[in-house]
Amino acid sequence: MVAEIVSVGTELLLGQIADTNAQTLGKILPEYGIEHKFRQTVGDNVQRLTDALKLAVSRSDIVFTIGGLGPTADDLTREGIAAALGDELVLDEAISAHLKHLFEVRKMQWLDMQNRQAMRPTCATPIENPNGTAPGLLCQKEGKVVIAMPGPKGEFGPMANGPVRDFLLKHAGGEVIHSRLLRICGLGESTVEDKIRPLLDATNPTVAPYAQVGEVHLRVTAKAPNVDLAEAMIEPVEMRIRSVLDDAVYGSGDTTLEKALIDLLVGRKETVAVAESITGGGVGAQLTAVAGSGDAFIGGVITYQPEMKEKLLGVDSGILSDPERGPVDPQVAEQMAQGVRKLCNSTYGVSLTGNAGPAADQGGKPVGLVYLAVAWDGGVEVQEYRWRGQREDIRRRASQFALTLLRSVVLRRIQ
Amino acid sequence: MVAEIVSVGTELLLGQIADTNAQTLGKILPEYGIEHKFRQTVGDNVQRLTDALKLAVSRSDIVFTIGGLGPTADDLTREGIAAALGDELVLDEAISAHLKHLFEVRKMQWLDMQNRQAMRPTCATPIENPNGTAPGLLCQKEGKVVIAMPGPKGEFGPMANGPVRDFLLKHAGGEVIHSRLLRICGLGESTVEDKIRPLLDATNPTVAPYAQVGEVHLRVTAKAPNVDLAEAMIEPVEMRIRSVLDDAVYGSGDTTLEKALIDLLVGRKETVAVAESITGGGVGAQLTAVAGSGDAFIGGVITYQPEMKEKLLGVDSGILSDPERGPVDPQVAEQMAQGVRKLCNSTYGVSLTGNAGPAADQGGKPVGLVYLAVAWDGGVEVQEYRWRGQREDIRRRASQFALTLLRSVVLRRIQ
Repeated sequence: MVAEIVSVGTELLLGQIADTNAQTLGKILPEYGIEHKFRQTVGDNVQRLTDALKLAVSRSDIVFTIGGLGPTADDLTREGIAAALGDELVLDEAISAHLKHLFEVRKMQWLDMQNRQAMRPTCATPIENPNGTAPGLLCQKEGKVVIAMPGPKGEFGPMANGPVRDFLLKHAGGEVIHSRLLRICGLGESTVEDKIRPLLDATNPTVAPYAQVGEVHLRVTAKAPNVDLAEAMIEPVEMRIRSVLDDAVYGSGDTTLEKALIDLLVGRKETVAVAESITGGGVGAQLTAVAGSGDAFIGGVITYQPEMKEKLLGVDSGILSDPERGPVDPQVAEQMAQGVRKLCNSTYGVSLTGNAGPAADQGGKPVGLVYLAVAWDGGVEVQEYRWRGQREDIRRRASQFALTLLRSVVLRRIQ
Repeated sequence: MVAEIVSVGTELLLGQIADTNAQTLGKILPEYGIEHKFRQTVGDNVQRLTDALKLAVSRSDIVFTIGGLGPTADDLTREGIAAALGDELVLDEAISAHLKHLFEVRKMQWLDMQNRQAMRPTCATPIENPNGTAPGLLCQKEGKVVIAMPGPKGEFGPMANGPVRDFLLKHAGGEVIHSRLLRICGLGESTVEDKIRPLLDATNPTVAPYAQVGEVHLRVTAKAPNVDLAEAMIEPVEMRIRSVLDDAVYGSGDTTLEKALIDLLVGRKETVAVAESITGGGVGAQLTAVAGSGDAFIGGVITYQPEMKEKLLGVDSGILSDPERGPVDPQVAEQMAQGVRKLCNSTYGVSLTGNAGPAADQGGKPVGLVYLAVAWDGGVEVQEYRWRGQREDIRRRASQFALTLLRSVVLRRIQ
């Protein structure tokens, strides 16, 4: 079964709101084994809406419209559906009576315009909307199905998750599309693809890579009669990926890198402290976004000015004031990591120093040059990176790679 | 001129991500008087992508594709555009050489697959992408224009706002819809609405309020033959708003609160340091997101563990260990702000301590209880807040309100 969404509303095209309703519905469809191949977005124009719906009905088995069911003259979805299905609109007396009753109860003035919401194609049955005035419409004609839902989130969500799910459960042909996300750090997208190449050609389950900042995500998706069977098909593929990529898979599902790291440290009763320059506190903020991070995160220092690096962390002032070296220097990163570890009495010290731009720094160090370090009892590791991109990207990348470095140091010490 | 967006990516149809890029572009188009009548979303399938592009090219003057420019086999936008325009793909040697150079500099392994990103329709010229590997493509054939842009936000945004705006400025004509955003802190949405009520009924320019976390934004929008005339219509409305809301308007356009604050401090040759507990470094990260923030931001400490508050900032250990008080306490906030100001020798010290949840803390302090403080030469101000919401919301709110408090202290000292 092939589905298509037609989102209606000029405000969507103007970018005044993001189309999160279509996103919500997009997540629901695969759960019922429905293929979702197209989405169209049109403004409040009856001709363009009708054209879009005709196209949708011609190529898809079930079409969802979102929005355009209000009482005003620019709410045209009812007209569009009737035109696309070659049907006509009639006043539904039951809906009209229900609306009048609602207005009475809410002590709102009834305007005849309101009866627009009681119009429906002759082939339609109303879908109850306990959260607003406009009912949804289930239109069935000549084997095609059009389901019209209201746009306000508080009305759309309950309708999509209630009566629409019920309908799909009954009428969608049984197969589910179920997926699991595997999260990878420390390897680039092409390296990951290279390592798992044979899996990329498989058709069920499929494996699809997505590059993220400093991470790669692999989505393993199976089509099966039910979720349990899909899981059973995903399982061996996940095992295969994990055996090839090994430690680089840091988690699955919603597990973030910082969450995986906090869990790893808490499990080992180890702690971490940060010394941040280029990220200005971003790594600390990222780690403490995890509930319960206090069991592993001690705190740290933000040494944005070079003299703070000396004062709070004991970094060698000779390097800092050397015009050839300055604060963006591998040894500065090393001493920062060691210094904060000592200051906070933590198992690990993580440091970041670099130039996020927009201009070369005092020491003439180029934009994008970053040094990261992790210090532990008896050792320190420093990494150098040269990134391109905006200030925000460089800082975000620095945070991700610092956490990745910390994770690799912790794992290495376990082995 | 009629424009159409074709967003490419199975992840969009599956609802894994919201299509915020299309939203961004949707906001840009009206500024150049371009009518945006259709948007299509298709998955990573070359036939459906080609069909969508053929339809788009047949009914719109300018078509934008977003996504599908990566190096992997499911990045098919180049193929789709060539097929839709009846063109063919060639390897662009200059792009290829540039890519190889990038890989060399970044010390990444070159795979021949990467050359997919150097393919382009013969009618295309590349659009520079300083933030990623895939160049954009400007394809012009038989009076039709297709502009292909990469999907990652950090690459898409700068390209849309840079070279694409330049192109639109040159080639689009007609009435513009132009707006200016005024940014307000320290007042709630209903207070702002109440103060400017008469302006909310105006039709050209219109004034529309948007509530943000800890801020209110007012968008003033005018329709006029050109941007200069629109600006001239917006000007008196802005003056009126500023005269009513006074200092609460901290900036306009893209000026963030942190940017306005850094500018204010730099102008006064004053400096700030932060002592963060609940936000874990988030305020420092926010301030240092501003290019040039080093002229006012010294650094600070992340005292996530109570003992760090004593050790690094000299907070009274009696309060910290008092079971009735603990670290979430007004006097702790006060001493943190004073302590970090002294430690970093800055004009101002800002502190944040509180409970972001998910559970009540050791001292039994409820989730959402937050103390903020700002210390200066001869004074300190503490604020108490009790917020509801998720951990993330509470932390974000704490950062915004701390910056708002700092701004009000700085402004008060000027008067």
